[in-house]
Amino acid sequence: MNHSPASSTQAPSDRCFGPVAIILAAGHGKRMKSNKAKVLHEVCGRPMIHYVVDAVRQAGVRRIVVVVGFAADQVRAALADQPDVEFVLQEQQRGTGDAVKACRALLADHDGPALVVVGDEPLLRPEPLAALLERQAREGFACLMGTAVVSDPTGFGRILRDGAGRFLRIVEERDCDSREAAIREINPSCYVFALPHLWTALDRLTTNNAQGEYYLTDAPTLLQEMGLKVEAQPALEPDDVLGINTRAHLAEAHMVMQRRIHNRLMEEGVGIVDPRNTSIDARASIGRDTVIHPFTVITGRVRIGVECSIGPFALVRDGVTLGDRVSVGAFVELTRSDLGDGVAVRHLSYLGDAQVGASVNIGAGTITANYDGRAKHPTRIGAGAFVGAGAILVAPAEVGERAVVGAGAVLPPGRVVEPGQTVVGVPARPLDRFQRSATDPR
Amino acid sequence: MNHSPASSTQAPSDRCFGPVAIILAAGHGKRMKSNKAKVLHEVCGRPMIHYVVDAVRQAGVRRIVVVVGFAADQVRAALADQPDVEFVLQEQQRGTGDAVKACRALLADHDGPALVVVGDEPLLRPEPLAALLERQAREGFACLMGTAVVSDPTGFGRILRDGAGRFLRIVEERDCDSREAAIREINPSCYVFALPHLWTALDRLTTNNAQGEYYLTDAPTLLQEMGLKVEAQPALEPDDVLGINTRAHLAEAHMVMQRRIHNRLMEEGVGIVDPRNTSIDARASIGRDTVIHPFTVITGRVRIGVECSIGPFALVRDGVTLGDRVSVGAFVELTRSDLGDGVAVRHLSYLGDAQVGASVNIGAGTITANYDGRAKHPTRIGAGAFVGAGAILVAPAEVGERAVVGAGAVLPPGRVVEPGQTVVGVPARPLDRFQRSATDPR
Amino acid sequence: MNHSPASSTQAPSDRCFGPVAIILAAGHGKRMKSNKAKVLHEVCGRPMIHYVVDAVRQAGVRRIVVVVGFAADQVRAALADQPDVEFVLQEQQRGTGDAVKACRALLADHDGPALVVVGDEPLLRPEPLAALLERQAREGFACLMGTAVVSDPTGFGRILRDGAGRFLRIVEERDCDSREAAIREINPSCYVFALPHLWTALDRLTTNNAQGEYYLTDAPTLLQEMGLKVEAQPALEPDDVLGINTRAHLAEAHMVMQRRIHNRLMEEGVGIVDPRNTSIDARASIGRDTVIHPFTVITGRVRIGVECSIGPFALVRDGVTLGDRVSVGAFVELTRSDLGDGVAVRHLSYLGDAQVGASVNIGAGTITANYDGRAKHPTRIGAGAFVGAGAILVAPAEVGERAVVGAGAVLPPGRVVEPGQTVVGVPARPLDRFQRSATDPR
Repeated sequence: MNHSPASSTQAPSDRCFGPVAIILAAGHGKRMKSNKAKVLHEVCGRPMIHYVVDAVRQAGVRRIVVVVGFAADQVRAALADQPDVEFVLQEQQRGTGDAVKACRALLADHDGPALVVVGDEPLLRPEPLAALLERQAREGFACLMGTAVVSDPTGFGRILRDGAGRFLRIVEERDCDSREAAIREINPSCYVFALPHLWTALDRLTTNNAQGEYYLTDAPTLLQEMGLKVEAQPALEPDDVLGINTRAHLAEAHMVMQRRIHNRLMEEGVGIVDPRNTSIDARASIGRDTVIHPFTVITGRVRIGVECSIGPFALVRDGVTLGDRVSVGAFVELTRSDLGDGVAVRHLSYLGDAQVGASVNIGAGTITANYDGRAKHPTRIGAGAFVGAGAILVAPAEVGERAVVGAGAVLPPGRVVEPGQTVVGVPARPLDRFQRSATDPR
Repeated sequence: MNHSPASSTQAPSDRCFGPVAIILAAGHGKRMKSNKAKVLHEVCGRPMIHYVVDAVRQAGVRRIVVVVGFAADQVRAALADQPDVEFVLQEQQRGTGDAVKACRALLADHDGPALVVVGDEPLLRPEPLAALLERQAREGFACLMGTAVVSDPTGFGRILRDGAGRFLRIVEERDCDSREAAIREINPSCYVFALPHLWTALDRLTTNNAQGEYYLTDAPTLLQEMGLKVEAQPALEPDDVLGINTRAHLAEAHMVMQRRIHNRLMEEGVGIVDPRNTSIDARASIGRDTVIHPFTVITGRVRIGVECSIGPFALVRDGVTLGDRVSVGAFVELTRSDLGDGVAVRHLSYLGDAQVGASVNIGAGTITANYDGRAKHPTRIGAGAFVGAGAILVAPAEVGERAVVGAGAVLPPGRVVEPGQTVVGVPARPLDRFQRSATDPR
Repeated sequence: MNHSPASSTQAPSDRCFGPVAIILAAGHGKRMKSNKAKVLHEVCGRPMIHYVVDAVRQAGVRRIVVVVGFAADQVRAALADQPDVEFVLQEQQRGTGDAVKACRALLADHDGPALVVVGDEPLLRPEPLAALLERQAREGFACLMGTAVVSDPTGFGRILRDGAGRFLRIVEERDCDSREAAIREINPSCYVFALPHLWTALDRLTTNNAQGEYYLTDAPTLLQEMGLKVEAQPALEPDDVLGINTRAHLAEAHMVMQRRIHNRLMEEGVGIVDPRNTSIDARASIGRDTVIHPFTVITGRVRIGVECSIGPFALVRDGVTLGDRVSVGAFVELTRSDLGDGVAVRHLSYLGDAQVGASVNIGAGTITANYDGRAKHPTRIGAGAFVGAGAILVAPAEVGERAVVGAGAVLPPGRVVEPGQTVVGVPARPLDRFQRSATDPR
């Protein structure tokens, strides 16, 4: 099987085998009170739909269809760099059944099951999705739903089962009687459908309901009534199914995500002094015996070596790579920079677009002025160099190995400090000239 | 009538109609272990009595009497700028009944009900107070108490009712038998009294009790015994009645207050990434789609526009106004400043008493030196200006529109940078002169 | 007797009376995924075994024996400066009984009971240990165990008692049947043994068990079978017995420790605005009416006077002493420094190895460059001095009383600013010369 092109240079037909994911992302999310599409609101620094795309991909899906509607262009743009993602526009919001149906033309020739999930459940993990896909394939279900048993089912459809525990149907919350409302097994909108059957079921949906919409939740029962194999499996954990409808949900998702990330890192041997006060991106990798002190924020793709000390009060941003035994202290921000083994940048500094060699000491208050109002420029600091307190390195800047930049020195743009050389002053000059000028001012 | 509001221009008699509030604020608060009056300890940056004064005012009260005792001058001073607040001194601490009685002379001619509350319950909301005032007026109660049903009644008087649920009396905790101690409806010291009746009841109070004090809590029962209409209504939520007796209570009030503020803002469309790590003043207003990142503190009267990004690690203090799409980044403190639309101040900067035009870029490490040891001075930065990294602007300072202040430049006090001009160096000089000096040093 | 206290001047025999503590610290702690000995992982900035040593010392123990094994040299080094601590090496990890037995030669002549605890329970408080020691001595127990009743006993041995509540034996978790597993009284490995009896019991231990190890937990029952007096007393609180086996446990211990520290300080009259966002070392002392704002970290031995304001966003490190009414503001780090009464250092500053006189104002962005790449040097700032924004004081530096350092000035190393003098520029010069140069540039 040769599905899943990494780029779209292969023939489209290659994409037509294996599971496809349909991610419903057309809704507005009115309760967010935002001009932004709901699925683009960020959890731990990334649009929530990115997590869903990652999850289905990690579950083994090679073709991903995102149904867009409200602010469709925003959503397309946010996923534009992901070649395995295709888009389908739902013109009018006529229900979840209609949204899935909008994919029919695109998937007409697709041979494989469809995993249907929603774009506003960023905490879905790949493992249960993979398990559902695997079981659907093995046992030949027309529909295998993933459900969850939660302590508070408010806001979700409930799973009705017969006395023998067999799936009967999904009841929308607004249609629940009091007995049904008490059911704690809920429908998080996570289904694996056999594809030709899915289209058949969608054709039979009607809008004979309170909202006048096509409900995807009617599909499993329709398939069952057709004599096909349908089951609901409580495969998801309560955390997986946290749906985002409000800003408060978003904050809750942040906390759950952080707990997952912290627990994983701590199990790998990373010290997190106070998890309540630490925010780490899911994409960060951190080495053993590195300690993250309180009030630290790590965002984006960051790689940190072993036995480093980060924080308190450190901000390490996307594109940073730290070697081993690096010390990043208080009120220090790093972005798009590489710091070699044993580098110390302990206080009140900003390093952006900097390449810093091993064992460099960066004094308190050092700033790389990497932005000139138009573009970002790089700074290179050679191994063993010493940058004095309050130095300002206007990029592009180059400080040679074992060179010394004096406290308070300002390196003008383009300035190269030779290896072993010492410069001081504003603008920075080699030490001997400066001293003469300082002791014999005119 | 001998009251004398500090700066009221209305005739005194105007104040004698409508509800009056009596706020009991004479106590010491020994368990705070403080030299400060208890009601002046701060919750989210404001003395707790300010919240109580705000709440009664927002409940529709136009005349507010604060009973002071311990550290009376401190309390008067803290409320001196509030013209609708008058003070009565309770000379000796002889009980809550005595404290209210001390207001009698001042309120002798007052025609309207008295809302009696305590100054150490900063979480009281105006809504239930307004509802109690409205109902007392409508139904003609001699006394209508606001009560709360709490999970842990420790520390409060309990509300005794008869079998039909009618109010009987308040039992002080120390007088409770075990059955009474288990009652979870408590007296948070929140009453609306019909005024002439209140004085009558207070006259009948005795000190025949364990503490030898006049208890205000005896008044409702005395009025009921006089055949007057008395009722206790569980109008308050548990959070409302958090009384502050220790520093730990103060910390708890902070958390509840923050939760309320965060929830309100999130409902309005403000993103708060991690509410546990965000502290926002109740008086701040923040626009839709603005995101507050972790480790951000916003204190005082602050106005923030839409689509701004604040933090992580930002301190925005009283008197700051931010336009739309402003970016305030890590280790940045702002105080008494206006920043126009699209301003970016992203790293390690301090702006105080600054007026910053639209689209200005403030480099990392920029500082407005607004204090010369005697007074604060202003800084003005015109629209489109670019302030380089590590610049120090000694106020008063003026940077014209589209001007450029070079990295590491120090602007001496009074220096004006012309629109479009570029200055560099210490002290800052126009670029051409500086370059000559830098390339041809003597 | 072959023990060798590091620096004791007393005769060795003096150490042989009174209680001795045996701290088991030989384990690796595989689940920490670390190259560091488990007992050296830090809680609130100190190796966890330091807390245990402190606790037994504060419980009145004058002789402390630490049993080392994994990474023995690391553990010895971490306690090298504590003269009352001796070490015994457990060559092979053959169980807790074997570990205690390894102390036999060293303690052969010791006359007094042995308090046996484990080095990975950093939350043990001295009070219950002292109470156990006192009771053992008074009532003559061969073994008096301290136990705890916890909500979740997972991971601990359970205490079995007979129908009359008398101690029977300790059952290791892996040997528990379901009834025993439900017992919530657990063995936290905290014993007081009469010394000669302890050795007798250890001689009788066998390795006839699942792990093939000598279990110390068999000793109490063996002593009881010998007709000696043995009892298990639930003397410990659940928090006391939090054993550290994972990084997550470490984070939990941090939180409990912080809660204890915060509560103690708040009871003493210190304001802690938001305890969730405040980290304070157990060794810090803080004066009444000082307020600690959110996002503050205080580490090490720090002394802070009364009515100070610390934070938000302050880092106060080991060796700092603050007078009264000192203001330490946002993005300020202090280390090994003394600040006199009324000093203000409010924004973006780093002071290290600095002596600062009373009423000094330190401008935003001030940095003491105390490290030259080889050694740390001191800075002295006299009372009443004014240090302008962005000043860099390269140590050693001296600023006289009432002197003024201009904004952006850089003091070269060794520079002395005379009392009352004003200096400005890079490098800093007396004001008159600088002004000439600034107004008459070439």
